[in-house]
Amino acid sequence: MAENRPKGKLYMLPVPIGNTEVYDVLPTYNKTIIDSLDYFIVENIRTARRFLSRAGINRPIDTLTFAELNEHTSPEDISKLIVPIINGQSAGMLSEAGVPGIADPGADIAALAHRNGIDVIPLVGPSSIILALMASGLNGQSFAFNGYLPVKQPERTRAIRFFEKRAQTEHQSQIFIEAPYRNAKLLDDFLSSCANTTKLTIAVDILDPTQFIRTKTIGEWRKAKPEINKRPAIFIIG
Amino acid sequence: MAENRPKGKLYMLPVPIGNTEVYDVLPTYNKTIIDSLDYFIVENIRTARRFLSRAGINRPIDTLTFAELNEHTSPEDISKLIVPIINGQSAGMLSEAGVPGIADPGADIAALAHRNGIDVIPLVGPSSIILALMASGLNGQSFAFNGYLPVKQPERTRAIRFFEKRAQTEHQSQIFIEAPYRNAKLLDDFLSSCANTTKLTIAVDILDPTQFIRTKTIGEWRKAKPEINKRPAIFIIG
Repeated sequence: MAENRPKGKLYMLPVPIGNTEVYDVLPTYNKTIIDSLDYFIVENIRTARRFLSRAGINRPIDTLTFAELNEHTSPEDISKLIVPIINGQSAGMLSEAGVPGIADPGADIAALAHRNGIDVIPLVGPSSIILALMASGLNGQSFAFNGYLPVKQPERTRAIRFFEKRAQTEHQSQIFIEAPYRNAKLLDDFLSSCANTTKLTIAVDILDPTQFIRTKTIGEWRKAKPEINKRPAIFIIG
Repeated sequence: MAENRPKGKLYMLPVPIGNTEVYDVLPTYNKTIIDSLDYFIVENIRTARRFLSRAGINRPIDTLTFAELNEHTSPEDISKLIVPIINGQSAGMLSEAGVPGIADPGADIAALAHRNGIDVIPLVGPSSIILALMASGLNGQSFAFNGYLPVKQPERTRAIRFFEKRAQTEHQSQIFIEAPYRNAKLLDDFLSSCANTTKLTIAVDILDPTQFIRTKTIGEWRKAKPEINKRPAIFIIG
């Protein structure tokens, strides 16, 4: 009976970013865990199956169970996802790229696991936020990830100036992400809204062969803008 | 002549945390980079040599060049560290544990690299901050790492309340680190300063076999405090 079985665990499983070989950016230990699971909670089933196949999972993908967790999943459906784990089956949470739960789905199921006394085990993998910050030369003793800036004006410029001020007064690096097709526009908005001496890191195509990570002042960026349109990017103000 | 040689690159090289096998928490690709370098800028030379030996570097450690970069290094000495890279030699930056440049030395040399037009290349590895947040179930769309809280009162309680309020008003997870020997004290301070309904993640011994990561409300933690004294820890308020 379920009551007699120990609870399963919830593994937070990173997925590669960029066009990289799986085990160039994930420890091979992650495969040991992947091979031990047959229940996956995933942002997107198609992407997850492709990842598990590339990762060389040791049995047929058709024998595995997949459930989706993304912005379309209702709270009621999320609460059903935890039931197999309570009943003893471990699960792996996979987002489409990078680490689950950070700028990606996964936190909801981890929160539910904690409420049910289930261990949540994070594995090592690529976070574009951390990789960009490591390489930025900006303050890594205090930093904030703020997600996406508002799309509409005047909220957008107001938010940029708010975070620029916070970067200065609190000496806290301010990290942002943007949809690739809106990157060039965001760069223009930083260049028109921030002070000449403010530092801006532009990190695009992280871990790709075309990776470009550079920190300059807004004044320097104004003189020579890089071509970043449609390339996945992280921006950091410092 | 140096002017004719291409500049070197600066690699930000993660190091394991916890009592883990090196390649359980680092991709094997990192070894390819480590094996290609003979100049290392490190937080601590002894620890760095031990890590390179454990990582199985493919030649005698005595043939490598080491330079220290930590809180005792003067700005003048830091500016000397970049000279070999300008002259064409690539370097690896290693902190004592985890990822360099984040809650650890490394940002100063990365900043200097950017000012000299040198590529800074981040590699994948374990960040206790990111691992704790992934597993916390707290908001990973907006979060801040605030380093250490002030040690003295009344600044300490004031800071705890300031960040608790920011977690609520901005729905931004607030991450802190503490010296292991002061952990139990910090937990007591959270329990006496925060509201019953505030959520607190306690993450200790991350990636160790004794790993403990749990999110509960302050009210719940008050009823049963875990034994965390002298265990490396990350705390998150959400």
